[in-house]
Amino acid sequence: MLKLFYAVGTCALASHIALEEAGAEYTTERLNFANGDQRKPEYLAVNPKGRVPALITDKGILTETPAILAYIAQLFPKANLAPLADPFAFARVQAFNSYLCSTAHVNHAHLGRGARWADNPASHEDMKQKVPKNVSESFALMERDMVEGPWVMGKTYTICDPYLFTVAGWLPRDTVDIARFPKIHDLYKRMEQRPAAKKVLAEHART
Amino acid sequence: MLKLFYAVGTCALASHIALEEAGAEYTTERLNFANGDQRKPEYLAVNPKGRVPALITDKGILTETPAILAYIAQLFPKANLAPLADPFAFARVQAFNSYLCSTAHVNHAHLGRGARWADNPASHEDMKQKVPKNVSESFALMERDMVEGPWVMGKTYTICDPYLFTVAGWLPRDTVDIARFPKIHDLYKRMEQRPAAKKVLAEHART
Repeated sequence: MLKLFYAVGTCALASHIALEEAGAEYTTERLNFANGDQRKPEYLAVNPKGRVPALITDKGILTETPAILAYIAQLFPKANLAPLADPFAFARVQAFNSYLCSTAHVNHAHLGRGARWADNPASHEDMKQKVPKNVSESFALMERDMVEGPWVMGKTYTICDPYLFTVAGWLPRDTVDIARFPKIHDLYKRMEQRPAAKKVLAEHART
Repeated sequence: MLKLFYAVGTCALASHIALEEAGAEYTTERLNFANGDQRKPEYLAVNPKGRVPALITDKGILTETPAILAYIAQLFPKANLAPLADPFAFARVQAFNSYLCSTAHVNHAHLGRGARWADNPASHEDMKQKVPKNVSESFALMERDMVEGPWVMGKTYTICDPYLFTVAGWLPRDTVDIARFPKIHDLYKRMEQRPAAKKVLAEHART
């Protein structure tokens, strides 16, 4: 049985939607970051990084969104969430998700997590001010060169889509208008209508 | 025929070593970042991100180190660079490489690339001062919880090893002493002795 640890408003949303799309049997546990749940000993025993997502499996614990997403796709091949039989196409999926985790997510993280990388409040404010520009550049690049449309990889929905949906969901906080990126905007609206995303978003909205 | 674009001192070293370990036939092209080669139109036509590595393949162009490394492992299965037949073990490889690209590399990048995320010189200086602490924490976590030893994934050398070797090669610039992390230090010294790494390091050292 799979168990996903998540927190509301984090990139764990992508793995949660993917589990639902895969038709997986799984349970979840929500961490409250405002309470510092991610730093408590019982969670650090699960994921010493003190971050989400973490996926408990029969074989051990997995962390890092790109790895969890690819694992879900491999564990539930009938759901066809990644081009598993085509190494180059699979590598393109991995490249897209790597860009999200290493660049797009990091650009966003400087909005509220500046204290990770600098100590002075003035530096945090400086970082915040640059977030709209950096996030816009990431999304403009994805819109122009990376997202094929209608889904990220073209005609077929993959594990790239819930991940892009998740990071695009942060655009209002980044004060970036998603309408500037028409393919991504369209993809976002179609994602919101999928039953898997609706179900997961409803769980995350529950207080 | 594969062609790798790299620049000296960058994470492209990992893909370069992996190509060599795989016994691939490939060519390389070196970019000079000091000359701004990565921002020239001819390179942006290859990789619109303006970064390295980029791998030209018969099927198209790949970017992002974790994706390129996994693709090399899949393209040359006889080299046994990843546990391709075991989805969970493969996911752990991907999780390790995701951590390197999204956290360890990013912690290092605040040393010399602060201008990506803030505009004031004082903020860049503030970021620089925090780099030794952040990089040390990443390496302490990897040493304690992620690197099995003697290689990252245990007895078998994988695509995690040249990538960790690459990021660990930045520790002197980060003013962090690798000897504080005995397993990683040992792995680093064994990597340096492998013929693939020796050959690639010699190419990178050529002026």
